[in-house]
Amino acid sequence: MSGTAEMSLEEVIRQALPLVLPDEEERRKAKEAEEELKKRLEEVVKPPLEFRFLGSYARNTWLKGSLEIDVFILFPEDTPKEELEQKGLEIGKAVVDEYELRYAAHPYVHGRVKGVEVDVVPCYRLRSPEKIKSAVDRTPFHHEWLKDRVKGKENDVRLLKSFLKAGGIYGAEYKVRGFSGYLCELLIVFYGSFIDVVRNAVKWTRNTVIDVAGGKVYRKKGLENILVIDPVDEKRNVAANLSVDNLARFVERCRDFLESPAIDFFIPEKPKVPDVEVLREELERRAIYAVEFEKPDIVEDNLYPQLERACKRVHEFLERNGFMPLRSSFFAGSKCYLFFEVGVRELSAILKRIGPPFEEEEHVKKFLRKRRKYAAFIEGGRYWVYSERSYISAREAIEDFIRKEWKSMGKNVGEMLSKGFKVLKGVELLEFEDPVFLASFMALSRKLRG
Amino acid sequence: MSGTAEMSLEEVIRQALPLVLPDEEERRKAKEAEEELKKRLEEVVKPPLEFRFLGSYARNTWLKGSLEIDVFILFPEDTPKEELEQKGLEIGKAVVDEYELRYAAHPYVHGRVKGVEVDVVPCYRLRSPEKIKSAVDRTPFHHEWLKDRVKGKENDVRLLKSFLKAGGIYGAEYKVRGFSGYLCELLIVFYGSFIDVVRNAVKWTRNTVIDVAGGKVYRKKGLENILVIDPVDEKRNVAANLSVDNLARFVERCRDFLESPAIDFFIPEKPKVPDVEVLREELERRAIYAVEFEKPDIVEDNLYPQLERACKRVHEFLERNGFMPLRSSFFAGSKCYLFFEVGVRELSAILKRIGPPFEEEEHVKKFLRKRRKYAAFIEGGRYWVYSERSYISAREAIEDFIRKEWKSMGKNVGEMLSKGFKVLKGVELLEFEDPVFLASFMALSRKLRG
Ligand SMILES: Nc1ccn([C@@H]2O[C@H](COP(=O)(O)OP(=O)(O)OP(=O)(O)O)[C@@H](O)[C@H]2O)c(=O)n1
Ligand SMILES: Nc1ccn([C@@H]2O[C@H](COP(=O)(O)OP(=O)(O)OP(=O)(O)O)[C@@H](O)[C@H]2O)c(=O)n1
Ligand SMILES: Nc1ccn([C@@H]2O[C@H](COP(=O)(O)OP(=O)(O)OP(=O)(O)O)[C@@H](O)[C@H]2O)c(=O)n1
Ligand SMILES: Nc1ccn([C@@H]2O[C@H](COP(=O)(O)OP(=O)(O)OP(=O)(O)O)[C@@H](O)[C@H]2O)c(=O)n1
Ligand SMILES: [Mg+2]
Ligand SMILES: [Mg+2]
Ligand SMILES: [Mn+2]
Ligand SMILES: [Mn+2]
Ligand SMILES: [Mn+2]
Ligand SMILES: [Mn+2]
Ligand SMILES: [Mn+2]
Ligand SMILES: [Mn+2]
Repeated sequence: MSGTAEMSLEEVIRQALPLVLPDEEERRKAKEAEEELKKRLEEVVKPPLEFRFLGSYARNTWLKGSLEIDVFILFPEDTPKEELEQKGLEIGKAVVDEYELRYAAHPYVHGRVKGVEVDVVPCYRLRSPEKIKSAVDRTPFHHEWLKDRVKGKENDVRLLKSFLKAGGIYGAEYKVRGFSGYLCELLIVFYGSFIDVVRNAVKWTRNTVIDVAGGKVYRKKGLENILVIDPVDEKRNVAANLSVDNLARFVERCRDFLESPAIDFFIPEKPKVPDVEVLREELERRAIYAVEFEKPDIVEDNLYPQLERACKRVHEFLERNGFMPLRSSFFAGSKCYLFFEVGVRELSAILKRIGPPFEEEEHVKKFLRKRRKYAAFIEGGRYWVYSERSYISAREAIEDFIRKEWKSMGKNVGEMLSKGFKVLKGVELLEFEDPVFLASFMALSRKLRG
Repeated sequence: MSGTAEMSLEEVIRQALPLVLPDEEERRKAKEAEEELKKRLEEVVKPPLEFRFLGSYARNTWLKGSLEIDVFILFPEDTPKEELEQKGLEIGKAVVDEYELRYAAHPYVHGRVKGVEVDVVPCYRLRSPEKIKSAVDRTPFHHEWLKDRVKGKENDVRLLKSFLKAGGIYGAEYKVRGFSGYLCELLIVFYGSFIDVVRNAVKWTRNTVIDVAGGKVYRKKGLENILVIDPVDEKRNVAANLSVDNLARFVERCRDFLESPAIDFFIPEKPKVPDVEVLREELERRAIYAVEFEKPDIVEDNLYPQLERACKRVHEFLERNGFMPLRSSFFAGSKCYLFFEVGVRELSAILKRIGPPFEEEEHVKKFLRKRRKYAAFIEGGRYWVYSERSYISAREAIEDFIRKEWKSMGKNVGEMLSKGFKVLKGVELLEFEDPVFLASFMALSRKLRG
């Protein structure tokens, strides 16, 4: 990896620290913003309402360069949902300089105070986290549980966040499906340090259970993904949004890091732009298609599941129609794209359909009664018949399927597809806006994500 | 079927009789030949040797137009095999006018006496059929068992033989894999008449057992083809050479006959020559290949299994290489041909290979250590990698496989293939010598065989 001589784990971590630890300037800026924000909040948040600084800023676990202050507005338990939402937004808008609306459990305000990013999130103040009305209501409990336990380990949290971020797997949002900040803090508290997390993660499996409150790790039969039990709510899996593949990528990254520790693990990979001639040659020899359409105006956490669903539907259709799909993916940039690679460039005009065994007289009669283009034949003691394929090329199949089935491809994505789309094939993709994504999809380069 | 009005079963059978029953002229010719042959045999066959008239001529069950006299030379049990073979041929040559050598258990003489075909077959005279040295030694016992039992039912045997012959499934030789004459006689004896065979056969299955000597029919679990126990040797399946597909074709034919009895069932189907424009269009849209090579100079019972073996090997190779073979077949005419139809006209240049689950660290290491053209990727919690396909078209695959693996394709067929072959594809097959075979292979026409 790096050009320098091999370093020990400890040396690498020592060198990584300045990359992850906010500098004097960032801390000062944060403090100023916090004080200004507090002043503003005190003006508008009156009892029985209350505000609290929570999240990574409150615990001093934010990553250098990713400063963001999370402030939660706590409402009494009996506040109607509508009132909470309306008042929450009102307060948010009142305390930040510029804002936009975002959506989690409820809509909330994301804005800036003295140039620093701020989330103002309304939630209920509950006595016990088992009674939560929405996911954000757990956040105060998370902070209570963590705040003392994470003390002295803040920089280990930062190292882990940075290690994940450089690998493209930090963040629980649908676009990433990686590790949330809260999950990072729990792992550090549970295992004790960044390096202990790494050393233990190499043995994680899809059926590993980490019982944080109970202080135990074990395996559970039948589990299909890692389970990290929330210490404030044993029914919640803190890793619920982590995909199996990102779990696998993390485990791989940990193994690689232990085998040859390097500072590069804390620096986002510079995407290698693929050689256009290589790309062209590959696109000519393979069978790669992209469906291009207008991007619907919805938030990412809504868009990505729809893209995934659309992809899956088309993929399965290609499978059913004999094209042997190899891989599919999606991309949202200035437009949206569904990508498909299939194993077959061109099918025969016919397929072979199975019929009944010769012994089943009634079924045979029914089978032979049908008017067909081709004569039925006997093979291996049963009847078969050729029939016309609906599609010879994957392009025809994709186009026809989307035209007929756009309704099943997510509300907004489906609607956009119904308004029009274009299928790009092979070398037509040389024009595609993100050649790095394309190269990764084509397995011409290795990226942890994609 | 026939243009005449619908007929009853009985009427049809009555009308079929003159088609299957040898006429006066044929009987007279046979009698003359028999007497001449007997005279000649008495000159050359001296004790302890003995001759006997066996087979369908001896039992008056031969089919009109298929006159053939089977005469067996019985040798004492202690005759050395070499002596039996040598003397057997000597006698055969001495008693017929013109001859050729044929091969069953031993070589034998096939020739003519006064224009009538004659088989002169040497065998051992044994006390019990359990001690047979070769298959032909059972023949005298078959005759003993049948001769009285078949009396009065000769014409039913003839109807059955004709019914099978018209469907292309009379004969136990490898080329046909159908019903032997002996099997026909047993079935008539067992069920009582032609029409009773037909009425019962519609319910036959692959695990039907017909115990002729025991007078029972039953089903036996695990059986993969019908079993007809030889009444003279319970260890022998008289239907051993009948293929499952020809069993199925017979059952179908019986059902069809019962549903609409017609004289046509006793007349060989006139092959319909397919329309050349239809053929051309189909050949263009599908993916059909034939391997053409010189015909080795060997008997059919040796050639056909070798052709079948070669076909199977190529078929499996096409399967392994992703071409989705639909059907394969072979043809021996002036040259030999292996036919293949596949479901894929052109594959992508790459395929997707499975790797280990992410949890298996050592396997993952091994998998990732390999130098590969494409980057490995994670999907569904395991590793995968693309790799270059060896063949994009079935033609390349077939050519390369035969060039490398001809040795496994039967001794003589393999040798011929090693000397050279040509792959014909699509419309190149319009020149093929037997368009009727081709149309049937392509399921453009329905034939019972093929
Ligand atoms: N998927 C999520 C996202 C957020 N939270 C709660 O909301 C808080 C703030 O969320 P966020 O700002 O997204 O995460 P941080 O932990 O602050 O991490 P970061 O440093 O990325 O801001 C978290 O600490 C956590 O208690 C959660 O429980 N689950
Ligand atoms: N494996 C099979 C396939 C078919 N059949 C019988 O044959 C009939 C017709 O077969 P097929 O043409 O495959 O049926 P469909 O699926 O109805 O075909 P299509 O879509 O062409 O109408 C079936 O209804 C069934 O009675 C059967 O018994 N076993
Ligand atoms: N696969 C075979 C072929 C022949 N035979 C025995 O050899 C005799 C003569 O054989 P063949 O001439 O082939 O049959 P036929 O019964 O004479 O019938 P065809 O009318 O076709 O000549 C048969 O009756 C039978 O006893 C046999 O047991 N098994
Ligand atoms: N389903 C799989 C596939 C692969 N492996 C591991 O990964 C190694 C390499 O995989 P692969 O490249 O598929 O192995 P080979 O079959 O040896 O490949 P090649 O023919 O390219 O040499 C295997 O030896 C095995 O240790 C595995 O554990 N499970
Ligand atoms: Mg976060
Ligand atoms: Mg015969
Ligand atoms: Mn935060
Ligand atoms: Mn936040
Ligand atoms: Mn934010
Ligand atoms: Mn005969
Ligand atoms: Mn014969
Ligand atoms: Mn003969």
